Amino acid sequence: MTAARGFELSEFEARMARAQSEMTVRRLDAIVITAPPNWRYFAGFATQFWESPTRPWFLVLPRAGEPIAVIPTIGEPGIAKTWVKDIRTWPAPQPEDDGVSAMAKVLADCPRTYGRIGWEMGRESVIRMPIADFDRIRAACSGIEFADASPLIWRLRMVKSPAEIAKIERACRIGSDAYAALPGQLSDGMNEHEVARTFRAELTRQGADAIPFMAVTAGAGGYDQIIVGPNDRNLSPGDVMFIDLGATFDGYFCDFDRNFACGDVDDETRKTQDIVWRATEAGIAAACPGATPADLAAAMVSVMADAGATGGNVGRLGHGLGLQLTEPPSNMAGDETVLEPGMVMTIEPGMDYGDGKMLVHEENVVITEDGCRLLTTRAPREMWKIG
Amino acid sequence: MTAARGFELSEFEARMARAQSEMTVRRLDAIVITAPPNWRYFAGFATQFWESPTRPWFLVLPRAGEPIAVIPTIGEPGIAKTWVKDIRTWPAPQPEDDGVSAMAKVLADCPRTYGRIGWEMGRESVIRMPIADFDRIRAACSGIEFADASPLIWRLRMVKSPAEIAKIERACRIGSDAYAALPGQLSDGMNEHEVARTFRAELTRQGADAIPFMAVTAGAGGYDQIIVGPNDRNLSPGDVMFIDLGATFDGYFCDFDRNFACGDVDDETRKTQDIVWRATEAGIAAACPGATPADLAAAMVSVMADAGATGGNVGRLGHGLGLQLTEPPSNMAGDETVLEPGMVMTIEPGMDYGDGKMLVHEENVVITEDGCRLLTTRAPREMWKIG
Repeated sequence: MTAARGFELSEFEARMARAQSEMTVRRLDAIVITAPPNWRYFAGFATQFWESPTRPWFLVLPRAGEPIAVIPTIGEPGIAKTWVKDIRTWPAPQPEDDGVSAMAKVLADCPRTYGRIGWEMGRESVIRMPIADFDRIRAACSGIEFADASPLIWRLRMVKSPAEIAKIERACRIGSDAYAALPGQLSDGMNEHEVARTFRAELTRQGADAIPFMAVTAGAGGYDQIIVGPNDRNLSPGDVMFIDLGATFDGYFCDFDRNFACGDVDDETRKTQDIVWRATEAGIAAACPGATPADLAAAMVSVMADAGATGGNVGRLGHGLGLQLTEPPSNMAGDETVLEPGMVMTIEPGMDYGDGKMLVHEENVVITEDGCRLLTTRAPREMWKIG
Repeated sequence: MTAARGFELSEFEARMARAQSEMTVRRLDAIVITAPPNWRYFAGFATQFWESPTRPWFLVLPRAGEPIAVIPTIGEPGIAKTWVKDIRTWPAPQPEDDGVSAMAKVLADCPRTYGRIGWEMGRESVIRMPIADFDRIRAACSGIEFADASPLIWRLRMVKSPAEIAKIERACRIGSDAYAALPGQLSDGMNEHEVARTFRAELTRQGADAIPFMAVTAGAGGYDQIIVGPNDRNLSPGDVMFIDLGATFDGYFCDFDRNFACGDVDDETRKTQDIVWRATEAGIAAACPGATPADLAAAMVSVMADAGATGGNVGRLGHGLGLQLTEPPSNMAGDETVLEPGMVMTIEPGMDYGDGKMLVHEENVVITEDGCRLLTTRAPREMWKIG
């Protein structure tokens, strides 16, 4: 399947039907969407305009009937081009009442069976609006319980459609091709910012729409963390450099990292590289329908523990992936989500070694009927060399 | 002043001292930070890792004493490199208790004078954590009122230091130089995505760290909205194209747009272009210490109304700018914030015309002792031509 932009109407109708069916199971009269990835998922609407925190936007999905957009006037022409036809606006910004009374009215008019409205209140969710205004809407809706809709939303989003998988696969191909082109464009003496700019330019050439995440960090003989950087540090012989990438195509992310050796690395790093590479193999081999993220984590940990590892500090060994860089579930003990075809996961073992150093690998897979399929071009067993 | 990366320790100490002084005025025992721009402002800590919604991070600023970071273990090496020295961690993700009991303990131990703790609860603010967990912390802190710290935070962030202004100016120069290079790189027949990719590549070459916002939209004879796009539409002769840009240098944004004519545009568009250009001039002329954002809006509206305009639908005519694409205040009737030296504003008049078309201009200025200084290279009076 080729990754086209956007989705057919039938895709949104199917998402809405699944949401409505789940609302009955979970005893919710409606759910309210405020967060950009959920807006994109249910309405097919995306705007970078949400980079501005000034105005909240609401999408109400009732248990029966059509979605209702409650939005700032500025958004009307854009929403009118989506499949959402019931659009109510207010002239935001309007500091004294930015959507509060408009939302209180829509929720009061919503047919009531259970007296419960779901919001994005739980795990890995944020309500994109001032909490003082959320409290005001909650107070205005006396007699209605505000419940957590996050489990319902994540249940839907966790299993990707073929059209969604095609977009993630395209993002992964863009990332893989850009990584492959990178070693020849880098050299000793570049600083981490120059590395990041070089990689950004290559990703843009390869067709990335946006690059919301790019960590670049290097250290002599190895790196000690993976979430801060790039910094002004220059690459030197003997460095190990880590790059982690979250780039999008049509809103869908790839999320995978690569390690680079500046010249020769020491034996301990080389040995650790091989262990983590084999742990990744074990994680990929374990990914199949019926397995759990806890199983995947155990498969990876087992390889590293057999080799004498005492663990890494990143807290989990991969996660779901889609409209966000990370999504549920998490590859860690205790996550007993049952994997099924269509789920997209990162396989991300990490290992501490030496004197405060760490090494992290990552690939992206989609669960299939009988196992999984690699979406990224598998990292070479030995690190790429620079210079 | 040249824009260096990062800030001196004294800059953070000054921010903390101002925050603590404001806490006394506003009767708060501490404020709690969760949002990335506020983390960056007070701790000097930035990570794209927050693109992942899985883990909350907390920074507690007590009314006296040092800041306290309450964070996932994965963040410790990064925070240890900042000026924040009191670091408490928990091994996130930990779904059953992701920071809730850790935060309840820190807040219970916080010296209590007023019995009030400030959170990012109000205007143009979002608390970056699950609201169900926020409710749990609130319930666990009986006897402590959770109050809105947003006015305090925005009061501090609204007036930029010379070092902050230098970074915004550099972002504006990167954006200005990239815009100037663009017309020669575009041609009829490119689609909006190709335009966006070309501009992204040029911005990256010019030194942009990230490009969180780039709207590209074109229409025959004019465009009808400014927040959705790029799309797959091809540029054709007679089109007017709008690009709006939010690019960063060291975390600080520029935010300004430009209009492009594909060949010749009609008389009405040409006439409107001149009106909006003159409205921008009036906005820049009005920007000085002692004026209010309402005054700036009135100056711009006056030029457009004199020319027969009936208004635009974007709700305001510019806004503050800094660590976020848009910040308070807003150029609109009712915003009586008194402008003072160091505030950075966008001057952004927009006007409806013809059959559902609109035209929007934008420049960035910093308020000085005796007026304002343009940070962007002023747009030409006539639109840039393509092809």
